[in-house]
Amino acid sequence: MNQITSKDNKGVKEYGKLAKSRSFREETGRFALETVKLVQEALDSGVEILRLYATPTLAQAHPELVEKAQAAGAECNLISPELEGKMTQTGNSRGCFAVCKRLDKLHHIDKIGKKGRFLFLNGLQDNGNVGTILRTAEALGADGVILSRDCCDLFALKTLRAAMGSAFRVPVYRSENPKEDLLALSRNFITCAAVVDQDACPVTQMKFGDSAVLVIGNEGNGLPEDIAGCCRVRVTIPMAGKAESLNAAMAAGILTWEMLRPPFLQP
Amino acid sequence: MNQITSKDNKGVKEYGKLAKSRSFREETGRFALETVKLVQEALDSGVEILRLYATPTLAQAHPELVEKAQAAGAECNLISPELEGKMTQTGNSRGCFAVCKRLDKLHHIDKIGKKGRFLFLNGLQDNGNVGTILRTAEALGADGVILSRDCCDLFALKTLRAAMGSAFRVPVYRSENPKEDLLALSRNFITCAAVVDQDACPVTQMKFGDSAVLVIGNEGNGLPEDIAGCCRVRVTIPMAGKAESLNAAMAAGILTWEMLRPPFLQP
Repeated sequence: MNQITSKDNKGVKEYGKLAKSRSFREETGRFALETVKLVQEALDSGVEILRLYATPTLAQAHPELVEKAQAAGAECNLISPELEGKMTQTGNSRGCFAVCKRLDKLHHIDKIGKKGRFLFLNGLQDNGNVGTILRTAEALGADGVILSRDCCDLFALKTLRAAMGSAFRVPVYRSENPKEDLLALSRNFITCAAVVDQDACPVTQMKFGDSAVLVIGNEGNGLPEDIAGCCRVRVTIPMAGKAESLNAAMAAGILTWEMLRPPFLQP
Repeated sequence: MNQITSKDNKGVKEYGKLAKSRSFREETGRFALETVKLVQEALDSGVEILRLYATPTLAQAHPELVEKAQAAGAECNLISPELEGKMTQTGNSRGCFAVCKRLDKLHHIDKIGKKGRFLFLNGLQDNGNVGTILRTAEALGADGVILSRDCCDLFALKTLRAAMGSAFRVPVYRSENPKEDLLALSRNFITCAAVVDQDACPVTQMKFGDSAVLVIGNEGNGLPEDIAGCCRVRVTIPMAGKAESLNAAMAAGILTWEMLRPPFLQP
């Protein structure tokens, strides 16, 4: 393995830039990963790792990880603990970093067939929320997640961390034109706009069936009316108390749960 | 109003210490609040505000807030924008800070009667999770939240922010001895240990009834066996996919939703 101690090393510099810049990630088709756990999840999910950086302690504790990365064609490098401190974005890398190739998985929305239960995230800005929703979507068995063009980046480290590996496994689609795409999806799917509105259909009375798209709006502003207007139904979570609303990830989670809820309780 | 420009002002120093130190909050019986929104929620929920700090811009934009605080007996101070930058813990104070009296609301667990639907958080360490769970508990209509002694602090700024004011309104109880308390609660309540275990009762088959306590474990380790053993039922969320689990707040949210779900779908 190569030994690297300088933060001016070309690959190390690229790592830092990939960790910080969305446009650089999009331009190069690469992204940065940090922590043993995430690198393992990436390897296990078939993500192509171009370069691995590990401290000696990490390489000793996880020889299988280094071997697996080498076998998969990654260039493996040993880094000094000082360099680890300079590379980490999270303060919790445990000495493991990787430069990966972006999955060719931001499918065009046309690739969605006529069946399945999907989430459509419109303009979500919080990486933690998007990651949490991806993790929840996988755990509950959604068929995929659609991100509108103005959502935050799937390949940002904060998104990937909150997703805990789900970002590598859940099919993710991209919508360039949400209004047009929702109108098109509405032909085959029950498209459901999630809103905070007492007059909308309570989610407990919804029959999602097996072709549904749940549309979730931005943290601060919810769904714009013109987007909600492209959906077939407006759905809401009945609430008590003075809390104005649930947070976006929690609302998405509860609605996803209802959409995918094991069938024995369906009315 | 007093004008303050120095970070060495005694009250300003106390604010900083309250924002950072749990033991200082407990010792003084006070806590620190930041952002207009949270200070407004505190005033509206009857929290006693001892001192308010506002930038001139804030005081001009929200005269009603200053008036209300003054009428409630708070000492109101104008601070310079430079001082705002030094006081803020979140980078997003919008020029509004307060030193408040802790609510006398960490009821002893004996105060819980024989009916109601409660959450019991055992050893949760992430302020954001605890705050999100409080917000969700209020929105879904839970009767209260019990925190074990080793949970993170309810009055930490990060908890209060994630709770969005719910921390001031939801009844919160404190359990000094979780095992003993759960055994005692089990006499009148269905105590349900939330676990990740295929052999536990799927939450969709649970009949919570109107006297239930849902027990949620720590983010990393879940519920210790000896705590789960003090509960009457072990309950789990059926999951698909490779995701190992939901995050603690999301799991708590979905289980709370099932416990409190509007009745028309109960089997």
